[in-house]
Amino acid sequence: MPDDVKTNNIDALKDLIQKRDDVAVIGLVASLHPSDIAKLFSSLEEEEKIYVFGLLDPEVASNVLLEVDDPTREKLIASISKAELTEIVDEMATDDATDVIAELPHEEAKTVLEGIDWKESAEVQKLLKYPEDTAGGIMQTEMVMIKEDATVQETIDEVRKKSEEIPNIHCVFVVDDDTKLVGTVPLEKLILAKPHLPIKDLMNSKSVKVGVDTDQEEVARIFQKYDVVTVPVVDGSEKLLGRITIDDVMDVIEEEIFEDFYRMASLSTDERVLDSASRSFRLRFPWLLINLATAFVAASVVKVFENTIQAVVTLAVFMPIVAGMGGNAATQTITVVVRGLALGELELKYAKKVLVKEVIVGFANGALNGVVAAIVAYLMGVNYMIGLLLFLAMIANLVIAGFSGTVIPFILKWYKADPALSATVFVTTCTDVGGFLSFLGLAAIFLKYGMLG
Amino acid sequence: MPDDVKTNNIDALKDLIQKRDDVAVIGLVASLHPSDIAKLFSSLEEEEKIYVFGLLDPEVASNVLLEVDDPTREKLIASISKAELTEIVDEMATDDATDVIAELPHEEAKTVLEGIDWKESAEVQKLLKYPEDTAGGIMQTEMVMIKEDATVQETIDEVRKKSEEIPNIHCVFVVDDDTKLVGTVPLEKLILAKPHLPIKDLMNSKSVKVGVDTDQEEVARIFQKYDVVTVPVVDGSEKLLGRITIDDVMDVIEEEIFEDFYRMASLSTDERVLDSASRSFRLRFPWLLINLATAFVAASVVKVFENTIQAVVTLAVFMPIVAGMGGNAATQTITVVVRGLALGELELKYAKKVLVKEVIVGFANGALNGVVAAIVAYLMGVNYMIGLLLFLAMIANLVIAGFSGTVIPFILKWYKADPALSATVFVTTCTDVGGFLSFLGLAAIFLKYGMLG
Repeated sequence: MPDDVKTNNIDALKDLIQKRDDVAVIGLVASLHPSDIAKLFSSLEEEEKIYVFGLLDPEVASNVLLEVDDPTREKLIASISKAELTEIVDEMATDDATDVIAELPHEEAKTVLEGIDWKESAEVQKLLKYPEDTAGGIMQTEMVMIKEDATVQETIDEVRKKSEEIPNIHCVFVVDDDTKLVGTVPLEKLILAKPHLPIKDLMNSKSVKVGVDTDQEEVARIFQKYDVVTVPVVDGSEKLLGRITIDDVMDVIEEEIFEDFYRMASLSTDERVLDSASRSFRLRFPWLLINLATAFVAASVVKVFENTIQAVVTLAVFMPIVAGMGGNAATQTITVVVRGLALGELELKYAKKVLVKEVIVGFANGALNGVVAAIVAYLMGVNYMIGLLLFLAMIANLVIAGFSGTVIPFILKWYKADPALSATVFVTTCTDVGGFLSFLGLAAIFLKYGMLG
Repeated sequence: MPDDVKTNNIDALKDLIQKRDDVAVIGLVASLHPSDIAKLFSSLEEEEKIYVFGLLDPEVASNVLLEVDDPTREKLIASISKAELTEIVDEMATDDATDVIAELPHEEAKTVLEGIDWKESAEVQKLLKYPEDTAGGIMQTEMVMIKEDATVQETIDEVRKKSEEIPNIHCVFVVDDDTKLVGTVPLEKLILAKPHLPIKDLMNSKSVKVGVDTDQEEVARIFQKYDVVTVPVVDGSEKLLGRITIDDVMDVIEEEIFEDFYRMASLSTDERVLDSASRSFRLRFPWLLINLATAFVAASVVKVFENTIQAVVTLAVFMPIVAGMGGNAATQTITVVVRGLALGELELKYAKKVLVKEVIVGFANGALNGVVAAIVAYLMGVNYMIGLLLFLAMIANLVIAGFSGTVIPFILKWYKADPALSATVFVTTCTDVGGFLSFLGLAAIFLKYGMLG
């Protein structure tokens, strides 16, 4: 298995790089899968990567370029000449070439587009027009397309012609004279059919397809739902424009889930664990600043009750518990709701049902945790009325958590904002304010009526 | 596109179900993809689902059963006789049949295993022995296996024989006399080859394979790395046991990411947004109780400083800010670290580098947010020394956040526990305790030296 590669070869490789032993470096790297070369790169210094990259032949280099992380890709591209870059891009499938060219400065993009094969260049220029996160943005134009009046043998000949340049053919798309999609034929049917049969007889005319404007998340859901490995992309008049293969969709799925995950944790989606400290600082600071603002909102609620705390200072000991538990409960609710929305399990019509459920769950968890908190507080030897306060405030705040944790993601969804964003900014403010207000507010009332010593 | 299905048909369907119009219900449902039927089910009452499910033929029913959510699956299985269940399971691929049978009570599982085709039964019994989250647990035994001395034509004949019962063949696995895997041949090569050629000439003998004990997360990573759609599974002596197809892997990827996501939010991984209130309550309560315990740990720190707060009650207003910001910063760090570990980007050798980085980021964010907090506090008209306290405590606590947010996930990983679990339980305790201790502890020192009024 290629997995021993990473540990064994690095020292040897670094040594050969040091000696600038081109032949030996190529010898060592040539046997590796491009993914493994990309993985090796993560253990090399910048100059070392650039040196090794410069030795790779264009085909391998193009695959490596697609596998490395974004910052490395930028540096590698910057390290080579436009002519070399053109050669490398020329090796790529149209979807990958489009992604790379889209990131280049205008002048350089133009040079590369003029340098690569004119047919690919034309395709890439078309693809560049589609928004990145739609079916058009992730499709490739490489595919096997066949007229509906062709025979099985003619189709096989077409597959033969294309198989050199297109990996993962999986299936053939059948079109009419206007290049409108009329059906698909998986390769296994093609193998088993008699050569003289019309291809029309084999095709599945009800197979799945997606519109070019379909959101990539929706595309991913279609792949999962129908268990397919490739899907044709059509325009508004059913004309076949390209295809999407499952490897691109896997990246989309991972990207989309992590996006939610990151947003809920107040992170920029493009931060990575091995980023530099200054980059991480820059990316995180704005989010923390927003959190700071909401923390001050909560603090100003506490400020209103300074006199209450002055009278019974033990309140300050227990007030963070209620606010904190509200935050935890709200995070549970938001996470479940955001996941449901992301998977498409949760539609708007269920909003009321989920809201009622979350409020009930909040009440029940508030009551039970409230009882436990009250007992523990009592055992700590404080006034038993503080236990009662904890119990009541916990119920109030966990109901607030369930309510705001459901309603706010739905409102954001309604306004086409990202529901995952709600976590920190809005909902925690609700539960912090709710926690302090319910606990200290009730305490003030208790005090007023002489119930708190 | 099959997507209009969900909105249009439900009312009509419910109406027909009401009338118990079997023929019309089947007529309406028969044209739909099993995934769409499963989706329709989410809008039906329990009895309605059971009624419709009872009308489906075994093949469709088996596909629907695999697409519905877990609680619905349990109810549907409970609603039919053992004989019907046997018929339905008989239609499934071995990997799916294994998943369904694994969930059945012992007696029922036995009956079904005795009822289905004896060959499938034997395969399923073998598969039942592999742990659920390994290659063995997600593989199927349906595949096209061919001896290495076969010709292309013989291989095509074998594909023909198997293609009836096996969807998504994608490629053929070549084995020696001991059924040891020697190579793979993708279908497109088979189409294009001359019939009399030995299959050995076409095969790729260095293609990817996985060991039967490989963790499913690792399997998913291999699919992503090598952009393949099916992978053979072998035992310790390279004998071919089965294959994993990409559709199973997509589920794994989604499952694994959501698992981290859920664990970080203190949720059980099997909770769903449309679960009942009592189920959600049961699943969430234990997690909240753990959080309550950690909240009391933090509260007991505050309790130590009751006299300090009594002396300067404004401290109670600002102390939650420092603890809360620590929690937010720690969540950022943990999320980045957990993602890095999950994707395999973050290896142990980078631990020190990441730790240093996170401490620096914590320091920088602490200093900058601390300055802002100090200024805002000053503008709120409190003693400027409280601003200084906020500044110092913020730095201390964000450094604690960066440190514990990195170290704790690594320690958990080291002890083979889930790094995502660290979020709530350990790290928030660190930042709560750290926040209160640094802010109130410094305040106590300031007070002692007469620096706080």
